[in-house]
Amino acid sequence: MSKSPRYTALASSLPSSIPFVAPEKTERDTGADFRARLGANENVFGASSKVAEALTAAVSEIWKYPDPEAFDLRTALTAHLGVAMENLTVGGGIDGLLGVLVRLMIEQGDAVVTSLGAYPTFNYHVAAAGGVLHTVPFIGDYEDLDGLISAAIATNAKLIYISNPDNPMGTYHSADVIADMIARVPDGCLLILDEAYIETAPSDAQLPFDLNTQNVIRMRTFSKAYGLAGQRVGYAIGHAGLIQSFDKIRDHFGVSKLSQVAALAALQDQEYLAHVISQIDVGRKRLYQIAHENGLTTIPSATNFVSIDCGRDGDYARLVLAHLNDQGIFARMPGVAPLDRCIRISVGTPKDLDLFAEALPMALSTNL
Amino acid sequence: MSKSPRYTALASSLPSSIPFVAPEKTERDTGADFRARLGANENVFGASSKVAEALTAAVSEIWKYPDPEAFDLRTALTAHLGVAMENLTVGGGIDGLLGVLVRLMIEQGDAVVTSLGAYPTFNYHVAAAGGVLHTVPFIGDYEDLDGLISAAIATNAKLIYISNPDNPMGTYHSADVIADMIARVPDGCLLILDEAYIETAPSDAQLPFDLNTQNVIRMRTFSKAYGLAGQRVGYAIGHAGLIQSFDKIRDHFGVSKLSQVAALAALQDQEYLAHVISQIDVGRKRLYQIAHENGLTTIPSATNFVSIDCGRDGDYARLVLAHLNDQGIFARMPGVAPLDRCIRISVGTPKDLDLFAEALPMALSTNL
Repeated sequence: MSKSPRYTALASSLPSSIPFVAPEKTERDTGADFRARLGANENVFGASSKVAEALTAAVSEIWKYPDPEAFDLRTALTAHLGVAMENLTVGGGIDGLLGVLVRLMIEQGDAVVTSLGAYPTFNYHVAAAGGVLHTVPFIGDYEDLDGLISAAIATNAKLIYISNPDNPMGTYHSADVIADMIARVPDGCLLILDEAYIETAPSDAQLPFDLNTQNVIRMRTFSKAYGLAGQRVGYAIGHAGLIQSFDKIRDHFGVSKLSQVAALAALQDQEYLAHVISQIDVGRKRLYQIAHENGLTTIPSATNFVSIDCGRDGDYARLVLAHLNDQGIFARMPGVAPLDRCIRISVGTPKDLDLFAEALPMALSTNL
Repeated sequence: MSKSPRYTALASSLPSSIPFVAPEKTERDTGADFRARLGANENVFGASSKVAEALTAAVSEIWKYPDPEAFDLRTALTAHLGVAMENLTVGGGIDGLLGVLVRLMIEQGDAVVTSLGAYPTFNYHVAAAGGVLHTVPFIGDYEDLDGLISAAIATNAKLIYISNPDNPMGTYHSADVIADMIARVPDGCLLILDEAYIETAPSDAQLPFDLNTQNVIRMRTFSKAYGLAGQRVGYAIGHAGLIQSFDKIRDHFGVSKLSQVAALAALQDQEYLAHVISQIDVGRKRLYQIAHENGLTTIPSATNFVSIDCGRDGDYARLVLAHLNDQGIFARMPGVAPLDRCIRISVGTPKDLDLFAEALPMALSTNL
């Protein structure tokens, strides 16, 4: 047997991991399919029927490489958002875009600031680049914007990550508050504003685009309200120089042909999007109601999920969650205290939520 | 306006680029569609009809995240190849897999060896990691295996890249010769054996898998013979420890749901694959014939393209190519001398090749 190849010191130090246990894996391991899929904040209502039509029409073209510039999709997105082509790049979901951005900015030892309990995949990309993560606790289930800015100044951070509305709690800050935060980002630091859930947020969360500002980049996705999590399409909006820098290292053919087609068709059916958003709102209200009927409190949600406060500590919430999973309800929960007193339930179909309503009292009573 | 974010020194040094000008971009720029698409070594015969059926059945599932472990596809691939699950990982085409592998091994200043004129996207990933590329000229239109090994020893290289069959010339080395090369890879160096075109190669190119060997990783794709270039699915086969290391930094959700479904369906239709391979063989022979009728020589091809020697220097071949492109024949050519005396024509449908047969004499006479 030959000697091992030589990994970088950084790669040698990293663990091999699968950051999220997929529901498919649990199903394979247990031999039982979930009855309701409420753990990954997917859009259970699915994509527009226009997407299926567009995909069917495009299947005969999949022998061709995808357009590395995603021209048609970027043209439609920039028209929809009122920004220029030079201000928008497309990538393999926000996950893929975060990976590229982190590699552009972060090398061994560079400081990065995020909230304690925020998106694990961002942290994974920071670790892969050798960055040093500094975390700021939530305050009252909201990301602590002042704390994030202070930490960035104190650590000379190159990146700050926030999501608005946020995951895993579902709260949001108004656009005015976010604009004020952006104005306070220290020079030489870039704020990553992850807006994965922006479509389901109230109108006062919608921040206008200011593309002269160099210290913020906004990321959005087709995975949530548009119902295309399987197709991995996200986009980043920012200053032209920053957006152009993605072309230094990105995988140019990384967004598949059918993914580009699906995203374009989804974008073009805003009527369906509005319909889905109203269904999500109905689902959120139903989740509040189910929780309240069980004597639990809820965190007001601007997203397609509701965090339900189980009223005790993380150990208790983990037991409740495990029991729900055992009953065939795929759900997840925040990873760190005190957020982990909650379980996080994605909006489901009425039938999904009936199943949850049936399972929750049993999960709670079993663990009393 | 705020100050610029702080890029890494490496990122600051890199150019923004689109490594390949897509035919779609040329079509947008000229306002005219190509009549024959023979430049990207796509499979013009398309994917199996089973792929269309599987995609149609899966469209209703695209609101779900893809399986990050690509379990079904990996199960089928490993059974087909006779390797264990731990020896195979799936990624966003060979492009995506090369990017991850380079990041695992290469940091600023590390030496990498490849052939002069070989795959540009590999070089792009090496540059993005700060690696130093050492190139070895082809010998008589074949990659110079001895020269690559010698260069790896001389430069203390961490990676050697070869493709077999090779791109852009279409030649191949027999499995015995490749096995002998693998045995001579220096300790601590990893040979990347890109087998993108292996399905169209003769049987004596088919190297058995030896998964105890740590200094080779083999990469294959659904983009060529399987006809799924648009869907971005590749796989890497190697020693378990090396394959597991991809889980340190890869984008786990990077291969879309429909891409996994399409690749699985394509793999399961080996009868169609055999049919396509026979069509590709017919097309290669037709390309030889067209070239010979025009007084040109051809490089024997083990791939789905033929390199045609235009008989003079690169400047002349570039003129011929430009004239073909002007006549609506999308083609490409090798980038460096002496390979660039050739133009590279992908196998097309009979109609595509009729168009090429009609255009080539004009391209040659115009440039006499």
